[in-house]
Amino acid sequence: MHFSDEQNENFMQMALDQAKIAQSYGEVPIGCTIIDNRTSEIISVGYNEREETQNAIKHAEIIAIENACAKIGSWRLEHMSLYVTLEPCPMCAGAIINSRVEEVIFGAYDPKAGSVGSINNLFEETKYNHQPDFVGGILADDSASLLQNFFREIRRKK
Amino acid sequence: MHFSDEQNENFMQMALDQAKIAQSYGEVPIGCTIIDNRTSEIISVGYNEREETQNAIKHAEIIAIENACAKIGSWRLEHMSLYVTLEPCPMCAGAIINSRVEEVIFGAYDPKAGSVGSINNLFEETKYNHQPDFVGGILADDSASLLQNFFREIRRKK
Repeated sequence: MHFSDEQNENFMQMALDQAKIAQSYGEVPIGCTIIDNRTSEIISVGYNEREETQNAIKHAEIIAIENACAKIGSWRLEHMSLYVTLEPCPMCAGAIINSRVEEVIFGAYDPKAGSVGSINNLFEETKYNHQPDFVGGILADDSASLLQNFFREIRRKK
Repeated sequence: MHFSDEQNENFMQMALDQAKIAQSYGEVPIGCTIIDNRTSEIISVGYNEREETQNAIKHAEIIAIENACAKIGSWRLEHMSLYVTLEPCPMCAGAIINSRVEEVIFGAYDPKAGSVGSINNLFEETKYNHQPDFVGGILADDSASLLQNFFREIRRKK
């Protein structure tokens, strides 16, 4: 890991702020931030836009990865640390592998789709051509609370 | 499977035609077609655009899925059959799961990243909320020849 615990929490807080933007649009609150771990520069952010766009691909990580590729002009996100409030699903874990993101810091674990420890761990599959470093559980309670409140509110409205 | 062997080969030929477009732009030749299996309508196509866009997400399947979501106005691609010339990588297998594509027909197996039988099989993971039907090896020789010629040409130029 490139950053201290305190720095990891600061960058995760930015990802949580993105999750709150998603929530304000009625989206499942998940957010992401990508940081250049050589300079600490914020390269990109993203939040879940699946419902707004009606596009199955538009998870927070995918949007942040696409924005990062656009910003640096390359599909190779080496030297990047990706912060996301929820354990990546297989699509996002695969996108992280494909884009060569160096390390992933995630918040809450996701027993329903999490593919970095919960259901399986795609980052430990040595047959893929890249294995990102990873750590989970950073500000996990804040992320889980956001999600629980969101789904509670949806059930209440129904 | 919804279609006959002959229909599967016809739709795979369309995906191969997309792969050839990719090749004409200097991209690794991989193509995809999505068909509504209730009507046989061609919903969308896509080809690998990773180098042109310098965007790690822009695999053939992702582009076809995004185009299909845009066309039908929904992130749920139920009743859709996806044809792709190469076994999906984990990102694309995950995108197919997330978008609820009903069945996947692929061409050549991919020992380096294939996640529908080669390295693992994400479509058989019952903990994910959707398990697409799948079959591999359709017009596999045509797909493999395209890829082999492409990489041979790249090595020759180097």
